Amino acid sequence: MCELLGMSANVPTDIVFSFTGLMQRGGGTGPHRDGWGIAFYEGRGLRLFQDPAASVESEVAKLVQRYPIKSETVIGHIRQANVGRVCLANTHPFVRELWGHNWCFAHNGQLADFQPRPGFYRPVGDTDSEAAFCDLLNRLRVAFPEPVAVDILLPTLIGACTDYRGKGVFNCLLSDGDWLFAFCSSKLASITRRAPFGPAQLKDVDVTVDFQAETTPNDVVTVLATEPLTANETWKIYQLGEWSLWRRGECIAHGKTGD
Amino acid sequence: MCELLGMSANVPTDIVFSFTGLMQRGGGTGPHRDGWGIAFYEGRGLRLFQDPAASVESEVAKLVQRYPIKSETVIGHIRQANVGRVCLANTHPFVRELWGHNWCFAHNGQLADFQPRPGFYRPVGDTDSEAAFCDLLNRLRVAFPEPVAVDILLPTLIGACTDYRGKGVFNCLLSDGDWLFAFCSSKLASITRRAPFGPAQLKDVDVTVDFQAETTPNDVVTVLATEPLTANETWKIYQLGEWSLWRRGECIAHGKTGD
Repeated sequence: MCELLGMSANVPTDIVFSFTGLMQRGGGTGPHRDGWGIAFYEGRGLRLFQDPAASVESEVAKLVQRYPIKSETVIGHIRQANVGRVCLANTHPFVRELWGHNWCFAHNGQLADFQPRPGFYRPVGDTDSEAAFCDLLNRLRVAFPEPVAVDILLPTLIGACTDYRGKGVFNCLLSDGDWLFAFCSSKLASITRRAPFGPAQLKDVDVTVDFQAETTPNDVVTVLATEPLTANETWKIYQLGEWSLWRRGECIAHGKTGD
Repeated sequence: MCELLGMSANVPTDIVFSFTGLMQRGGGTGPHRDGWGIAFYEGRGLRLFQDPAASVESEVAKLVQRYPIKSETVIGHIRQANVGRVCLANTHPFVRELWGHNWCFAHNGQLADFQPRPGFYRPVGDTDSEAAFCDLLNRLRVAFPEPVAVDILLPTLIGACTDYRGKGVFNCLLSDGDWLFAFCSSKLASITRRAPFGPAQLKDVDVTVDFQAETTPNDVVTVLATEPLTANETWKIYQLGEWSLWRRGECIAHGKTGD
């Protein structure tokens, strides 16, 4: 299994605090030694940092912690390999261009004997995760040859996630840079921070941050993670089959698929 | 105008020396202050570092210089914006997946009023360069719905480059991770280094490297650049319309299109 990290915010926000907690699980407090990656949207562009090395030992991870990149939408992942060997091509998140946007995807779980339908997008590596991402984009493209609003494509997206969930464990984060979609098949948590901000204490390492000192009263920042990252805050724990859609820190749609 | 940097090698080789020279031209000895990027193939995976900031001031560029990443195929670029504003989405090199491979592209030059044919790949940013890259991949996909060997697709590739050249200036580097293709519309140079290796002296900054100390007798490393990067070596200067195809440091095909 792997760990997911997502962020949606209404102002460019750095994710150094949450990333620091997550990175400890990459060979420190957790067993996820098989690579990590994090993608930051910057306008329509996407900055992607990845390393097949364990995150606690990664030079690139140290850069990301030292050099706070501010973004409104972030997707991160640390990996414990189950399908596909440890290499850069198998490292999440995965990125493809669809309708002139960078789509970014990370997956936690495992799909048994996943056979994607043939299509335009093809996996570069050999993970079930990237194969599912390509299959998802192929389905969207077949259903919508031209771009549509997210509320129009949402049923297709949820339908695909429900199918994948039937083949194993499928927790995922997906974004096109405008919105962030989260699907929980087994484990996912989220927290929305807004004024009045208080201090937060990481669970995995002795780091506390006072968000009050780093924010303005109008900031809204939602963080999603496989498990809560802080010890002194109340995270929402997702139910099985629950999904949510975020834009600029706020939940704009949510629901739950049948068991 | 911009500057291109490419490398094809038969062993994983770091490009720190050439990159150090190129980066000086990004606001140091050259006027290319509008961003830079460099992509390293690592197996089927691709590491992409980019920054819309001038390369001489970029934190990410300093990481790339400090942390030698070894690769057999590299494409780099520094930008002086002419079409498209300065932002991450307009920063070369550009990447798309085609046939399950990461295709990477960088362009030096400018295309006047470039109107790409509609197709599957669409630009994320608003540069003529990314539009031409998408058009090129769309042409290849229409001509070859399934993967073919590079010698089969080469005429289509050269035909497209010849078309783009008719619309302005089109020097480019393109790779699918297996081969590296270079096309010269106005300015390009290359050098192939092999045993016996000697010292090389950068033109743009007072740095000398003794390749003898860093190589084995079987290493073959070709570097391509808009202008020669070293002062004490003889670079091949490309003619207008000349193209070359490289694999593992060796030229496997070359030719020249009509004027």
